[in-house]
Amino acid sequence: MLRVAIVGASGYTGAELLRILYAHPEAAVTCVTSEQSAGKRISEVFPFLRGRCDLVLENLEPVRVAEKADFIFTALPHKAAMEVVPTFLRLGRRVVDLSADYRLRDAREYELWYEPHLSPALLKNAVYGLPELKRARIAGAELVANPGCYPTSVILGLAPLLKKKLIDPATVIADSKSGVSGAGRSAKVDNLFCEVNDGFKAYGVGGAHRHIPEIEQELSLLAGKKVTISFTPHLVPMDRGILSTIYAMPVEAATTAELLRLYQDFYKGEPFVRVLPEGCFPSTAHVRGANFCDIGLTLDQRTGRLIVVSAIDNLVKGASGQAVQNMNIMNRLPENTGLEVLPIFP
Amino acid sequence: MLRVAIVGASGYTGAELLRILYAHPEAAVTCVTSEQSAGKRISEVFPFLRGRCDLVLENLEPVRVAEKADFIFTALPHKAAMEVVPTFLRLGRRVVDLSADYRLRDAREYELWYEPHLSPALLKNAVYGLPELKRARIAGAELVANPGCYPTSVILGLAPLLKKKLIDPATVIADSKSGVSGAGRSAKVDNLFCEVNDGFKAYGVGGAHRHIPEIEQELSLLAGKKVTISFTPHLVPMDRGILSTIYAMPVEAATTAELLRLYQDFYKGEPFVRVLPEGCFPSTAHVRGANFCDIGLTLDQRTGRLIVVSAIDNLVKGASGQAVQNMNIMNRLPENTGLEVLPIFP
Amino acid sequence: MLRVAIVGASGYTGAELLRILYAHPEAAVTCVTSEQSAGKRISEVFPFLRGRCDLVLENLEPVRVAEKADFIFTALPHKAAMEVVPTFLRLGRRVVDLSADYRLRDAREYELWYEPHLSPALLKNAVYGLPELKRARIAGAELVANPGCYPTSVILGLAPLLKKKLIDPATVIADSKSGVSGAGRSAKVDNLFCEVNDGFKAYGVGGAHRHIPEIEQELSLLAGKKVTISFTPHLVPMDRGILSTIYAMPVEAATTAELLRLYQDFYKGEPFVRVLPEGCFPSTAHVRGANFCDIGLTLDQRTGRLIVVSAIDNLVKGASGQAVQNMNIMNRLPENTGLEVLPIFP
Amino acid sequence: MLRVAIVGASGYTGAELLRILYAHPEAAVTCVTSEQSAGKRISEVFPFLRGRCDLVLENLEPVRVAEKADFIFTALPHKAAMEVVPTFLRLGRRVVDLSADYRLRDAREYELWYEPHLSPALLKNAVYGLPELKRARIAGAELVANPGCYPTSVILGLAPLLKKKLIDPATVIADSKSGVSGAGRSAKVDNLFCEVNDGFKAYGVGGAHRHIPEIEQELSLLAGKKVTISFTPHLVPMDRGILSTIYAMPVEAATTAELLRLYQDFYKGEPFVRVLPEGCFPSTAHVRGANFCDIGLTLDQRTGRLIVVSAIDNLVKGASGQAVQNMNIMNRLPENTGLEVLPIFP
Repeated sequence: MLRVAIVGASGYTGAELLRILYAHPEAAVTCVTSEQSAGKRISEVFPFLRGRCDLVLENLEPVRVAEKADFIFTALPHKAAMEVVPTFLRLGRRVVDLSADYRLRDAREYELWYEPHLSPALLKNAVYGLPELKRARIAGAELVANPGCYPTSVILGLAPLLKKKLIDPATVIADSKSGVSGAGRSAKVDNLFCEVNDGFKAYGVGGAHRHIPEIEQELSLLAGKKVTISFTPHLVPMDRGILSTIYAMPVEAATTAELLRLYQDFYKGEPFVRVLPEGCFPSTAHVRGANFCDIGLTLDQRTGRLIVVSAIDNLVKGASGQAVQNMNIMNRLPENTGLEVLPIFP
Repeated sequence: MLRVAIVGASGYTGAELLRILYAHPEAAVTCVTSEQSAGKRISEVFPFLRGRCDLVLENLEPVRVAEKADFIFTALPHKAAMEVVPTFLRLGRRVVDLSADYRLRDAREYELWYEPHLSPALLKNAVYGLPELKRARIAGAELVANPGCYPTSVILGLAPLLKKKLIDPATVIADSKSGVSGAGRSAKVDNLFCEVNDGFKAYGVGGAHRHIPEIEQELSLLAGKKVTISFTPHLVPMDRGILSTIYAMPVEAATTAELLRLYQDFYKGEPFVRVLPEGCFPSTAHVRGANFCDIGLTLDQRTGRLIVVSAIDNLVKGASGQAVQNMNIMNRLPENTGLEVLPIFP
Repeated sequence: MLRVAIVGASGYTGAELLRILYAHPEAAVTCVTSEQSAGKRISEVFPFLRGRCDLVLENLEPVRVAEKADFIFTALPHKAAMEVVPTFLRLGRRVVDLSADYRLRDAREYELWYEPHLSPALLKNAVYGLPELKRARIAGAELVANPGCYPTSVILGLAPLLKKKLIDPATVIADSKSGVSGAGRSAKVDNLFCEVNDGFKAYGVGGAHRHIPEIEQELSLLAGKKVTISFTPHLVPMDRGILSTIYAMPVEAATTAELLRLYQDFYKGEPFVRVLPEGCFPSTAHVRGANFCDIGLTLDQRTGRLIVVSAIDNLVKGASGQAVQNMNIMNRLPENTGLEVLPIFP
Repeated sequence: MLRVAIVGASGYTGAELLRILYAHPEAAVTCVTSEQSAGKRISEVFPFLRGRCDLVLENLEPVRVAEKADFIFTALPHKAAMEVVPTFLRLGRRVVDLSADYRLRDAREYELWYEPHLSPALLKNAVYGLPELKRARIAGAELVANPGCYPTSVILGLAPLLKKKLIDPATVIADSKSGVSGAGRSAKVDNLFCEVNDGFKAYGVGGAHRHIPEIEQELSLLAGKKVTISFTPHLVPMDRGILSTIYAMPVEAATTAELLRLYQDFYKGEPFVRVLPEGCFPSTAHVRGANFCDIGLTLDQRTGRLIVVSAIDNLVKGASGQAVQNMNIMNRLPENTGLEVLPIFP
């Protein structure tokens, strides 16, 4: 039984890790930390856990955490993560970091979008934890940088096309829509129920969202050359889910059926990617609570443009589910251990 | 491995049975029926199932169903259920019926609220499937009448008080609020998104809801005398969940703490009833997707009135989860088999 | 043209006053204050106002406010209101205060539920601003205490019965449900979208809500004796609306039709109270955005209990609409001036 | 006082016409029709109207309708509209048709996307009712084809750019998101609350939506050459609102500030178009219930792509509000008569 710590357990990704790991037969959460709520039971913060997980939240003291756990999830804001991750590694603990701190390979790029990096030397060892693309490297990693939610939906949506060089990367536009849990659990007027409910808006318009460098880094690796995309995030009045509508111009003729076959081949055997039949497109409602990435696509005959639609649950495949998938790989467990639950509908 | 059929699989309780049973290690769904969608894959009707359950929906031919399954869930509307349940029983299949058809022990009462009963002789053999109150009888039953969603929340909320004769039954008022999935999946203007969203209303005001005779039957059994209550259902703009706020006058002095202790004793060892600490009250958000019934209570010092608040997920403890709990009991499986999942939050 | 100030304009009741007064032909908003956002345009805080109301928010300096306005709405939290209202009155300005500070006639009662009162002498002059019950006194008032949202729904729902002594006041239970805007616009985790959406809960269970003394004060005046009630508020995942389901035992025989006639007579000529026909019950969706209070009732034959259901928009009839109605009365304007808009549906 | 009929009054656009016209000082609704609900009061179908508009719904007999009204809104499904509009015109009534039947100038195009046209000769006389572009022609029209909701948001968002030939039309992508009222009020499983709530999906992906020919017709007129675009509609779990995120490549260098100035000039004096300041982008929540079209834009420095975001309320500027705006123009009334209401927030 793997002893697991969740550092930063009082946010939504922390809660989701607890929900998922409760059903995991090979892992047990032995330590949860929270600066704000230290001393309280986690089930006071999240009453849905009552009677099933009543651990007391602790202050974050890395050495104590490392004593209690073999494996560590850091579910902290960026910066806070890189303040403790090096210590965990030094103490011999393997880490899946859910923050942005180790996702970019280039410290200057990190500094450009975030701030100066505190442990740039670790960046080259950290593995970007998208199992469908980097399974082998994840298996051997000490530190996995768990992908962002938007990037997961966009990269999985485009990977087959870029890998096969079927589209012109300069034409890629990702118009993405996210549920509100992606904005975290801190008290902000912007995320109050009455500010969000029954409304819809774009934000970070014009290339301002911090997930952009991460998306472009991975798309560039796939394409074998620098890819720059337009990315516009939007806020949907729903708890969970990301749907990305992705546009690109093909570089050679192909039918929708041929492209779907390509996707089916590319994702063959993948436990969590579902390529939909022709004429079907995903909904976030059909992946809610589960680790799936559903993908549909079509070629718009009228414009020659290719349209890919991908859907994930931002807290599962976009965060905590993928983190557990990475933990499974790093521990030589069957990859779907604890993750074989169906979406909840309605 | 128990072979299970779901008769009437294209509604929300059918879908929820599929979700729950997918995670059940001792049962496998081998047959699904739907009159409207026969010939389609269940995953076309409910795309969340895609790749995990792609059974083809069949017309309801009882003999064929009974050949394919050892155990049958009927998730049909009332009347449709009693048209086939007797056949399943005659063919030696055990049944959990999720409709109202076998919940009332008195055929005249059924006729009063519904219509003439087609198999009144079965009523005395059918067991009302509320495990917390009738576990032993359920274990030996051929036919379990799965309780309604509102009744589950009200009966579990009141059982300790009535059993111990601590309240005056004539003073009981249950003000209940339900999510929209309780209204089913048929196409009605009243349940359109725009009719329900961002609004709140009462319905069936004044003792008109068909769950009343069922609630009163079971409360009367607990109290040892005829109980008549006021029950007002309301519609909440949410998918799932029932919260019942129940008022009653105590017949003898007691503190909130003493009453909570009584509840804790009464539900001691129950896997799915969580009695909350003093000062805490349940939310449907904290039971969403799980088989819990959360209960809080307090004595209003100003009026001497006792207030009990109970919360369930209407599709889980209020329908399909409880149905699987009953199936487990009827098959001598640990009662929480396949049901040990945490609520999904947010 | 009446020059109007809104003190505390950056909350939801402030925004709603601006929306309503924009359509008011006899009033013009000339001054808006906000401590947090002073210096910003109100249309930066509330972009829906852009191009129609772009006043700059000021710090609250009472003398300056009184110079700019003939009439003042204080839309401040309790305590903050009583720190400035006496100054406005001393400067000869009439005030409608939307806080709780001048609603209770007894300073000790205020202290019991809130804190020591800073200007208890004003309490006897302040008029409780429920036009349907106190129109004449409002007309002559210098200071109107605008009723709370829950109290408006409960008092209007019960007034005819208590006035005519048709029910036993000791049996009154008000089970009320509110949209989230009632909780205000300050940044709290509890009111985040993801904490509220798709869930339902009770709060302040057992007689803890501060609207209770206000409800009981007015019900007692109507009944001619001390009334103590059970009141349980609940939170509905919607922006606006309060629905109160009110239970009481009649003291003499009457039919539903007779009682509805009584209500129609009692509210005859009232511009904003709509008594629904027998068999009809209100929904908050049908009063959204308008100043109506819709009321339905029935006698439950089975229990002899009377059930009244009332619905308002908490921000309109429950706050800013009623405040403007009071302003109209105080200024001898037709009472529905600026308030003759229909609800928005859907 | 203009006597107005609403033909097809039991849908959402009919209800919205009633709401808006109730506040209109120069028009009175004298006739409402509905095939399904003939004989009922409109306030039984839409209880929000109770006490303010209690007209009895009639069967659609064109001659009777024309006797009762000077001006007619047809709020019927496509095809049903063209079955009656010619009669109204022949009887000398002016018509704003809210269906798609007279929006396309080319009957073959109509047939391609819909079905054979019943009165193709009228197409050349019908004026496409987008006041910001065709005010003069609307003023003289007998028949105005009220624009679709998506087209209104896309055309207003792009008009200045195409008119000034600042973008390459072949690069235009409109990624649009709509609230559920756009799907109408007929009973369909797909639009049930539980199917829509807390989820998000694309539909009509790949150039399948019937609003495309209408959008392209008007964009082509603006550009002076044939424009073909990619258009993807999405469904947002909210009642009202459309937000379109529009991408295009500029053909010459310009800054965001210059482009915003262009928009401000283009829409100068327009009562209902609000061009937002640099760095600001619209939300459907800020136009809810009002006739505004809010527009923001930015040039993405990283990709050189221009991004325009426009927001309307689909039932107001996208349907009934614009219809009343057209009625005002056709009757030489100030264009904002009855439409000067602020959005409702929250």
